[in-house]
Amino acid sequence: MKKFKLLLVAAVMSLCTACSINASNDHIILGTQGSFFVGGTVKTAPGTYDTQQPLKSDGQTLHGDHAYVQYQIPVQPKENPLVFLHGAGQSARTWDTTPDGREGFATIFLRRHFATYLVDQPRRGRAGRSTVDETIKAVPDDQFWFDNFRMGQWPQYYPGSQFPQTASALEQFFRQMTPNTGAYDEQLIATDLAALMDKIGGGILVTHSQGGGPGWHAAIKSKHVRAIVAYEPGSGFVFPQGEAPEPLDTISPFGALGATSIPLNDFMQLTKMPIIIYYGDYIATKPSDNWAMDSWRVRLQMAQLFADCINRHGGDATVVHLPEQGIYGNSHFLFAEKNNVQLADMLESWLKAKGLDE
Amino acid sequence: MKKFKLLLVAAVMSLCTACSINASNDHIILGTQGSFFVGGTVKTAPGTYDTQQPLKSDGQTLHGDHAYVQYQIPVQPKENPLVFLHGAGQSARTWDTTPDGREGFATIFLRRHFATYLVDQPRRGRAGRSTVDETIKAVPDDQFWFDNFRMGQWPQYYPGSQFPQTASALEQFFRQMTPNTGAYDEQLIATDLAALMDKIGGGILVTHSQGGGPGWHAAIKSKHVRAIVAYEPGSGFVFPQGEAPEPLDTISPFGALGATSIPLNDFMQLTKMPIIIYYGDYIATKPSDNWAMDSWRVRLQMAQLFADCINRHGGDATVVHLPEQGIYGNSHFLFAEKNNVQLADMLESWLKAKGLDE
Repeated sequence: MKKFKLLLVAAVMSLCTACSINASNDHIILGTQGSFFVGGTVKTAPGTYDTQQPLKSDGQTLHGDHAYVQYQIPVQPKENPLVFLHGAGQSARTWDTTPDGREGFATIFLRRHFATYLVDQPRRGRAGRSTVDETIKAVPDDQFWFDNFRMGQWPQYYPGSQFPQTASALEQFFRQMTPNTGAYDEQLIATDLAALMDKIGGGILVTHSQGGGPGWHAAIKSKHVRAIVAYEPGSGFVFPQGEAPEPLDTISPFGALGATSIPLNDFMQLTKMPIIIYYGDYIATKPSDNWAMDSWRVRLQMAQLFADCINRHGGDATVVHLPEQGIYGNSHFLFAEKNNVQLADMLESWLKAKGLDE
Repeated sequence: MKKFKLLLVAAVMSLCTACSINASNDHIILGTQGSFFVGGTVKTAPGTYDTQQPLKSDGQTLHGDHAYVQYQIPVQPKENPLVFLHGAGQSARTWDTTPDGREGFATIFLRRHFATYLVDQPRRGRAGRSTVDETIKAVPDDQFWFDNFRMGQWPQYYPGSQFPQTASALEQFFRQMTPNTGAYDEQLIATDLAALMDKIGGGILVTHSQGGGPGWHAAIKSKHVRAIVAYEPGSGFVFPQGEAPEPLDTISPFGALGATSIPLNDFMQLTKMPIIIYYGDYIATKPSDNWAMDSWRVRLQMAQLFADCINRHGGDATVVHLPEQGIYGNSHFLFAEKNNVQLADMLESWLKAKGLDE
């Protein structure tokens, strides 16, 4: 008996060493993590650099317009990493912790064994070095964003809102806005994003809001985008030349929503991968005197026209309007709200259905 | 026999479930990770917000001037987390991956079971929302920084430089510069940093370069700074009123290096914790016609005067000039160079000696 007890203890001890103690299903086990810059250009001032006159720009360079990418690779990663691009006025923080301090999509999917790549687009966040000048005005506009993002009509939340309704969460949310440090440039973002996809050998692109536009172009520029998941793309929808719809009228202060015409050959690239587009709640189904609900009405409508066009050309695009699936209360930041695990489950199910969850 | 073999197998299987398979010493095992904003202010425009006029700032707020903090908590964390603050023109990227793609101090110390908090200071990086306007000029100055940071005299590296000398590493390094999105404000940074220390209940503050200045003030404002590790502080040295040295002359384009006078009571706070200050190589010991070597000559000299003053008042401050320890070739970004593991070992030994490695 004693001998076998000792054997048991020895086996347990050696196993613990191999496993490294204390890792459990509650833990995140990473192989590696880090960050890098990708894409960008170099601006060179005329002349010759003189180290005795170092404050003169003559002959000096400026490396700018790159994207910043933070990555985490879990043990036993799935084949396709997730590449996350934020929207207007945001950084990679969009995908990180939720405003009420819970894990966001980045960590949720990391726990589900997806490698994650979080992008700060060129001229934003930690990719702030721009090749063009910029003036930033500190203009108060929190309430505009609250209304536009459909948390409610300031200062009231919409009934049933999934946004975490504490003062602290709202404060954290407002503080995650961060400005452009150079003019917004959709093609520049798309170019850097395509370079990222080429560098990592492919992945699933997850975009939010304004990020939708550069997302489509990145998938046209790189052959390594295996799927696109777009949360509430708000502009930049592309159509083949001759097929773009007329601008859609709305009372939104952004004005009528136009479509972008691109060569058919480019557009056809978007038929080669599955695409899913999600929208939340509080979107009007007919013209509304609530400007935010009306603004998103035409955005949802344009997304449907876009998906129809892709499918007409042989592609696979789906628009999901969450209330039609019985999921109510989500704002423009749906993936960071109280039901974000439910929305992550939805996305994972879709990835599984498309064979991208392996 | 058979019974005991079964028992053994069962024990091993149940242990594997508890351990989660495949975790090893090569892996990073996290309990949790995330980010938050801390500190900051709210600027409010006069008037009343009207949702029908959402582009007018009347009555709207702007949440700005906060710091952004990314954190990672390993399993079995040591008692004292490390809080990292970058220097001028940098973001938390400073502490992340090295320019040549290896793990930087953040991940190195995470693997060594320190919880890590990486700060983007207010008006920088992902904490870009500022309460004041800013104009950013895209002026080429890479070569100035190369010289000032003592990688060499452009385009030559100094002989024996520890900076990873590949074109790719230098490009990554240049791209990690990112601009202020509002005026640099040492007290604002110190206030946010102190709020962070209070929020997390204390830790070891690790600063770089310009971050040294707000670091001293954060330790004065918060009782929760347990130690300060300053890599090449370049300015902002504080002395009790009546004890500040005269400005130190140098041919540096930054001009003579002054000292800041503060009340003795405030200064005394800096005597209550161990402080270590590291400088790398290529620093002149007497006036030099190499402006960068001369600039850092007076900075190292001021650091020694600062440490002497702390020790005179009963504190525990040490200045380490690496070449005097037989470690050669390090630039201003010493902790991210080829010998960064050696420098991490040095820091860990110091923490251990001070009882802060438990």
